[in-house]
Amino acid sequence: MLYKKEVIGRNAMKLNEKLGERKMIEIIQSRLDVMPKMPISFGDDVSAHDIGNGNLAVLKTDMLVDKTDVPPGMSLWQAARKAVVMNVSDFAAKGVKPLAILVSLGLPGNLTGKDIEEIGEGLNAGAREYNAYIIGGDTNEASDLVISLSVFGIAKKNMLMLRSGAKPGDLVAVTGFFGTTSAGLKILLDNLEAPQKIRGTLIDSVLMPYARLKEGLALSQAKAVTASIDSSDGLAWSVHEIAKASNVGFLINTLPTAKEVKTFARINKLDQLELTLYGGEEYELVLTIKPKLWKKAEKAVKEVGGKLFPIGKATAKKQVFLEIDGKRSIIEPRGWEHFKKVKV
Amino acid sequence: MLYKKEVIGRNAMKLNEKLGERKMIEIIQSRLDVMPKMPISFGDDVSAHDIGNGNLAVLKTDMLVDKTDVPPGMSLWQAARKAVVMNVSDFAAKGVKPLAILVSLGLPGNLTGKDIEEIGEGLNAGAREYNAYIIGGDTNEASDLVISLSVFGIAKKNMLMLRSGAKPGDLVAVTGFFGTTSAGLKILLDNLEAPQKIRGTLIDSVLMPYARLKEGLALSQAKAVTASIDSSDGLAWSVHEIAKASNVGFLINTLPTAKEVKTFARINKLDQLELTLYGGEEYELVLTIKPKLWKKAEKAVKEVGGKLFPIGKATAKKQVFLEIDGKRSIIEPRGWEHFKKVKV
Repeated sequence: MLYKKEVIGRNAMKLNEKLGERKMIEIIQSRLDVMPKMPISFGDDVSAHDIGNGNLAVLKTDMLVDKTDVPPGMSLWQAARKAVVMNVSDFAAKGVKPLAILVSLGLPGNLTGKDIEEIGEGLNAGAREYNAYIIGGDTNEASDLVISLSVFGIAKKNMLMLRSGAKPGDLVAVTGFFGTTSAGLKILLDNLEAPQKIRGTLIDSVLMPYARLKEGLALSQAKAVTASIDSSDGLAWSVHEIAKASNVGFLINTLPTAKEVKTFARINKLDQLELTLYGGEEYELVLTIKPKLWKKAEKAVKEVGGKLFPIGKATAKKQVFLEIDGKRSIIEPRGWEHFKKVKV
Repeated sequence: MLYKKEVIGRNAMKLNEKLGERKMIEIIQSRLDVMPKMPISFGDDVSAHDIGNGNLAVLKTDMLVDKTDVPPGMSLWQAARKAVVMNVSDFAAKGVKPLAILVSLGLPGNLTGKDIEEIGEGLNAGAREYNAYIIGGDTNEASDLVISLSVFGIAKKNMLMLRSGAKPGDLVAVTGFFGTTSAGLKILLDNLEAPQKIRGTLIDSVLMPYARLKEGLALSQAKAVTASIDSSDGLAWSVHEIAKASNVGFLINTLPTAKEVKTFARINKLDQLELTLYGGEEYELVLTIKPKLWKKAEKAVKEVGGKLFPIGKATAKKQVFLEIDGKRSIIEPRGWEHFKKVKV
């Protein structure tokens, strides 16, 4: 009979620093029986169960752990709200309204009643911001602060925007600018400098992220999108994920770099391409759209107060390139990954 | 701007060792907007969202954390399976079939690929044991092994067995014997002795718990149950929870002590009443049943291979008593609680 410490630590080679999150998910999936007629296959942003009449129960779970997801400077209220945003963002990418949220908390033994209140208020604020409600949950003792949420919604099966529908010729679009969180994290983690005028914007992008729910719902209604994902692992990674799931390649011809990021990169002698493509903790949507439906998609997003920028197109050739001013380079499939990433 | 360590540890009084899990849940609930027409109120074993036509989407989330939920001697496979059982048990108590499960994992950095396989296999085994499937999830780095599950099912609103329906005069029943996990934990944690003949049974009750799903579903179908709860916090606590939710009291006149526990208590000079009433990590159902429907309930459970034992009755007087051989004593509202309990 094995004892816990031996079981859990029995091979202290720290192998999963090499394994990485995606490999671990692969290992676990390989051990699972697959539900017959599963409406959304493993590896998309949400899961679903068929509830009849063309409707799906859409489900999502994602966990915030303080040591990897809560940078210095983020309050407990903001951390709890962020846990909601992380989950809602995946619903946004699929075009599904979040209705109800359950929360499972792991709480370190030194939190005070006031801290717990702050967590409760942050969770509620996040949920109400997206018109959802927290309807249940539980608490547990843990070494880290762990906020594990499950989100529930209902969607028409044919309205879901999956990762897998992009076709060569489709336009690629994003709902906002990139690089602010990379820059903000460098300010918070490495004390890099930024002029007062842009410092707040960059830091706020980390502490107060927003899910593009309005945009996602509008685009789903417009039926113009062929594939969709959020950019929580960074723009490059998101584009590669759509490429893989849809069996296409991409030619990106516009870098959607935020203007504050251009200034920040110049001042700190950083590569703005790196900040834009290989960040993470960003919650813009990355979408592919049929060219003839572009106007319709743009209008739908504009009507809810959002924006849609074309940044390139899907290609039959299965590689992901960046082409700016006639210069072509490869966009690498790297981005934000737990276990492998530099710790925040 | 507050920094994380200061935020999380800013009042290192370890207040929540005094707060306790239930107080923390109360604090969080007090911060939440309540969903209008919420079909199941806070504090029951599952949550629900109305999906029309008298149907509810039933949702549950519960987290296993190694340091409080995984005793020495439990393998990773067993821990992962137990995480499923914990959640399914609450569905069993409500009479709802679990259909799909999502898993959010917090994994310490020293787990190997083999360890992850074992976790995947344990999750799958647990899900398939109750005819459910794992349909999605994610992994994260954490200091503890954290297995946070979300379970989804569908139920007719009028078939749910809530905590709140017990009426004075209803019989109280349980689906099995108690005390084996308390005894098993004393063997695993404190090295107490047990004869070979019963040792395996006691230890297995801890390492390989079973959810009473068949029984719960059969009882829901029989429409004989007025209130129901599982006994994961111990028999005494469960009875008190029904008492509180239903606004009744109880007179318990039979202690459902497992025969192995009687032997174990005698050998180790322990109080068998204490082992039976104030344990935890048990997954029997505790139910109240209309006297005239007792036979029907008993038959329904027997038909699925289960058992139902009467142990007392609900009373108008709002206290919980034990009366054995004419001697009456108070059953205290204590049991298994994270943060307050002696660590396993």
